[in-house]
Amino acid sequence: MRKAIGKASAEKIRSWLEHINQYNSTPEFGTTRVLFTDPEIKARAYVKDEMQQLGMEVHEDAVGNIFGIYRGLEAEASPVWTGSHIDTVLNAGMFDGMSGVVAGLEVVRLLREAGIRPKRSLAVVVYTSEEPTRFRLGCLGSRALAGRLAATEAAALYDAEGRSLYEVLEQLGFPVQDFDKVAKKKGEVFAAVELHIDQNGVLEQAGQTVGIVKTICAPTVLEIEVKGKQSHAGGTNMQDRHDAYMAACEISLQAEKLGRESASEYTTVTVGKMEIVPNAVNVIPGKVVFSVDIRDADYQAKNGLADKLKEAAARIGRQRGVAVAVREVNNDHPMPCAGSIREIIETKCKKLGVSYMQTISGAFHDSMLVGEFAPVAMIFVPSHGGISHSPQEWTDFAEIAAGTDVLAATLLELAEQ
Amino acid sequence: MRKAIGKASAEKIRSWLEHINQYNSTPEFGTTRVLFTDPEIKARAYVKDEMQQLGMEVHEDAVGNIFGIYRGLEAEASPVWTGSHIDTVLNAGMFDGMSGVVAGLEVVRLLREAGIRPKRSLAVVVYTSEEPTRFRLGCLGSRALAGRLAATEAAALYDAEGRSLYEVLEQLGFPVQDFDKVAKKKGEVFAAVELHIDQNGVLEQAGQTVGIVKTICAPTVLEIEVKGKQSHAGGTNMQDRHDAYMAACEISLQAEKLGRESASEYTTVTVGKMEIVPNAVNVIPGKVVFSVDIRDADYQAKNGLADKLKEAAARIGRQRGVAVAVREVNNDHPMPCAGSIREIIETKCKKLGVSYMQTISGAFHDSMLVGEFAPVAMIFVPSHGGISHSPQEWTDFAEIAAGTDVLAATLLELAEQ
Repeated sequence: MRKAIGKASAEKIRSWLEHINQYNSTPEFGTTRVLFTDPEIKARAYVKDEMQQLGMEVHEDAVGNIFGIYRGLEAEASPVWTGSHIDTVLNAGMFDGMSGVVAGLEVVRLLREAGIRPKRSLAVVVYTSEEPTRFRLGCLGSRALAGRLAATEAAALYDAEGRSLYEVLEQLGFPVQDFDKVAKKKGEVFAAVELHIDQNGVLEQAGQTVGIVKTICAPTVLEIEVKGKQSHAGGTNMQDRHDAYMAACEISLQAEKLGRESASEYTTVTVGKMEIVPNAVNVIPGKVVFSVDIRDADYQAKNGLADKLKEAAARIGRQRGVAVAVREVNNDHPMPCAGSIREIIETKCKKLGVSYMQTISGAFHDSMLVGEFAPVAMIFVPSHGGISHSPQEWTDFAEIAAGTDVLAATLLELAEQ
Repeated sequence: MRKAIGKASAEKIRSWLEHINQYNSTPEFGTTRVLFTDPEIKARAYVKDEMQQLGMEVHEDAVGNIFGIYRGLEAEASPVWTGSHIDTVLNAGMFDGMSGVVAGLEVVRLLREAGIRPKRSLAVVVYTSEEPTRFRLGCLGSRALAGRLAATEAAALYDAEGRSLYEVLEQLGFPVQDFDKVAKKKGEVFAAVELHIDQNGVLEQAGQTVGIVKTICAPTVLEIEVKGKQSHAGGTNMQDRHDAYMAACEISLQAEKLGRESASEYTTVTVGKMEIVPNAVNVIPGKVVFSVDIRDADYQAKNGLADKLKEAAARIGRQRGVAVAVREVNNDHPMPCAGSIREIIETKCKKLGVSYMQTISGAFHDSMLVGEFAPVAMIFVPSHGGISHSPQEWTDFAEIAAGTDVLAATLLELAEQ
């Protein structure tokens, strides 16, 4: 007879999440843990240590992805992955990403406790820098795994201090000589399932505990630079101005309008970041650089919106006599989740008596890139008020535990296939 | 027979300006010399040293204003002042402010060379922080001289690092115990004339060498804080957003519109500074703080525009479900220049064969505040393309020399009255 797996512990999950949350560079306002800053390095060390405590074999690849391996019975069988990320945006919460890593640890703890060793190995993966906070590009670890971030590209990604990702990895002692061995081929990973908080408030509104993700929306990130004429606020008549900031405002509002008018409810358009030069009260800005983040479940629709925005930006530039340059930082493909895994998740929800619904992920996740070399699926748990990337981000530990039960049952079934 | 004063030396003026310009924290992009930073402190020391070389008595008051006194024959007669400032905005040029200080030095050099000692003493004044770069309020030195900046107010003005003006002055050894002795009474200063670059391109367009300023426009500075709901860029539908940044864009464009529609050609409205929280590509901004700088030659018209903007900001806040708070940082009075001094300047221009025109100052200057306790006038010299507060700021040294000739003749006549 098959050994029985226990129930996930909300208390254990709370303890891990709160411990990770201590590694934080802005304890006075939310959680900030930026890639390879001191708190992030300490959080990585803590997670690796916990993996070892759980009897897992731990290794890291050239781009800093952490793999905790719970060995299966058949060494040759391709493994099943779960996991997420532990880096954050600025002034964020304690759940986005960390919940998926901690859920993975809890699954291994339950398997070990029940004395279950499945056919396939189970890997808990901590993907490097899902958030684009430091290098302005997200999913660095899963991107490299998908073969979309080569060593030369890592050497051309710079942070605000002008240090490249490759340089930082090398200085921290990651095996950068093996950078081109990071990418996985199709078939190397049997399946991958990521637990994550719902960032859209959909589960809470519907009163469901688990969301089974059909598709992960993907972002296009544009960086728009407007160059006008820097001059004195009081010395320059209104009609003589070439104000880079006002042009940026007009382009930003146009971007918002295109997002609001989109036929798809999954379209979002966000301007989150802006740098103004020189940024002084009494100087007409001569240069403004800002980001536009466009997301959609449909790749063609997303490109269509980006094209309309580029046209509008060029027109506004001509009208205002300022130079507008649009650079495409990235343009990812929306990722459909594997029907076969989604069916397993649904069956497990029913069996465990956990309420569920089908949903779409407006946010991107590492699974979006992992899906390029393995069948992927995602399990969402509710996020209160749909708030994330904010100090107000919150998910009840019991809800994560319920999702972890579904995750554990799903992973175990996949690991026995 | 009266001794004759020589012609101002463009070469000497160039040498002084270039020397001051070496004290610069952004040599790679224009000139940045912020109040009481290392370059500014060194520039102050250099100017004081040059004053002493010219035989002037040098002292500083509690707020850091520098006075170089060229003694007149009658110790009891109220002095005549000239001068300007040596601090800059970020990434500025080498002429705005410095030209007026150097012109004052050159006048003293010419008087000394000609062996002329007038009835009244002549003071070359370097006013503390005309630019609002560090403490967000401009004309700190002249404001204190006008009795509009008491010790308690200096203790409540903070820089970005949370240090107060009072604290910084005290740490640098200025006699802060005498703070309340800085203010001048009406009659203590006989007259004050400031040479400055034209920041509006008017002189260059008209092909005139000197501008005689009729009125100095004054700014109102508003700080607008918008608080929305910080959340995830991909996880939040367009219709569920309370985006602080988009509200700020709409308010900014409304401010620009009000400035463009004003009946007066002297109205300007500028948004020069903005801080976004958290300022990340994939986060809907939860908080934005930005400045609005409104200037006009007419105090009532300026207040009317500010009121309209406050109404628009409140309306936009209601429509978007974000909280908008408007704080008035300052609201200065436009200052008419003294007709009697303007007549002397005009007479001297004619006598010296220097072309001139009547003009208005769109930018504010220390003279705006000095005018509260003494008759003031300003002599403008051309600024190429009307560009200032920019690395492209330029005025020919020969043009400053021509303006200095007019200044010298004017000051000498006033000092003999």
